[in-house]
Amino acid sequence: MLPIVCVVGASNVGKTTFLEKLIPELTKRGYRVGCLKHDAHSFEMDHPGKDTYRHRQAGARTIAIASPDQVAAIRRVDSEPSPEEMAARLFWDEDILLTEGYKRSNLPKIEVFRSAIESKPICTREDHLVALVTDDAVDVQVPRFRFHEADKVADFIEERFLKHRKKHGVLVQLDGKQLPMKEFVRDFVVGAIRGMLSSLRGWEDPRTVHIHIRLKDR
Amino acid sequence: MLPIVCVVGASNVGKTTFLEKLIPELTKRGYRVGCLKHDAHSFEMDHPGKDTYRHRQAGARTIAIASPDQVAAIRRVDSEPSPEEMAARLFWDEDILLTEGYKRSNLPKIEVFRSAIESKPICTREDHLVALVTDDAVDVQVPRFRFHEADKVADFIEERFLKHRKKHGVLVQLDGKQLPMKEFVRDFVVGAIRGMLSSLRGWEDPRTVHIHIRLKDR
Repeated sequence: MLPIVCVVGASNVGKTTFLEKLIPELTKRGYRVGCLKHDAHSFEMDHPGKDTYRHRQAGARTIAIASPDQVAAIRRVDSEPSPEEMAARLFWDEDILLTEGYKRSNLPKIEVFRSAIESKPICTREDHLVALVTDDAVDVQVPRFRFHEADKVADFIEERFLKHRKKHGVLVQLDGKQLPMKEFVRDFVVGAIRGMLSSLRGWEDPRTVHIHIRLKDR
Repeated sequence: MLPIVCVVGASNVGKTTFLEKLIPELTKRGYRVGCLKHDAHSFEMDHPGKDTYRHRQAGARTIAIASPDQVAAIRRVDSEPSPEEMAARLFWDEDILLTEGYKRSNLPKIEVFRSAIESKPICTREDHLVALVTDDAVDVQVPRFRFHEADKVADFIEERFLKHRKKHGVLVQLDGKQLPMKEFVRDFVVGAIRGMLSSLRGWEDPRTVHIHIRLKDR
């Protein structure tokens, strides 16, 4: 799994504005950045009258559109997928996933804070806070960066989350739900699958392997 | 892999309008329908000023938004993915994928035809045409349906593509590219993976299995 870092904070504190500075800092270092926004309400991404919109209105559960330079998809879900599920499904070949929101997750968090908006940060180290971005004097036990220091936040993320990617990652989903596996089981699964596939013509030491299996109707 | 059927035809012949009738016919029979549109040009799905739009403008390669009832994603690509790749990636738990467009693919096609727009159908049986939807008299060697017969087209699709799903499907992608496998190799891969995972706690006879592996940096 790729590293996930959540940018959290109160409404209107400037999360998107900070991400607009942080994303290019990571991109110019050569990292491929994915970005996931949590939306508590229902958003509208498509436009009424478009063909894809009409497909969805007609009852298609998942609609997508593909062109030579981008693809887009909208999918109905019964419950909100976790950032980890979204990461595996949609961000598999990025180097890092930054999220806007997901303050209730157990993922590492960078909080954007302004004392003009909230009296104190919404997250603590117990909430997996790893850094605070603020221009105010705040007493926290994590590294603190100023709003103009997106480059230093990128240094911090690089050092903490991107330097030590020397382990295989593997995620197994059964009907969309993650199968929990201990580390030695994960290593065994990766080794067995790699061993099996690497003897096939077409294997050329890939960076990512995706296997989609549909078991036959019972 | 789920069955894919392409709805093709000349511009403005009524492909979307026909899909608007066909999708509910399949949905009311209990099938989960996905829909994929081919767009030769670059489409605009997001709205300027939205947070996701700003993330993308800042350089994120893939952006997504998740809410309790739907998720959406936009992804930059270097080349257009095939319908089969899109199917495996985005439509894995639908029963059938209908596409609008992809007349040059090798997938089965239903053409929507009007003699007022083109002198003859754009596809033949050599192009994997399996049916024609038209109100005009046309001499073709495939079943012909009228515009108001979406129910009969659904019968045809059900009989031809949805009744005989008694085989496992498997797709292996290495760095996003499909690994070609002969049928006995596919069966072997499915059997080996299923055997390995089915002994783990958490396995409960799923319908789909997805495995995402990120091999460690070399």
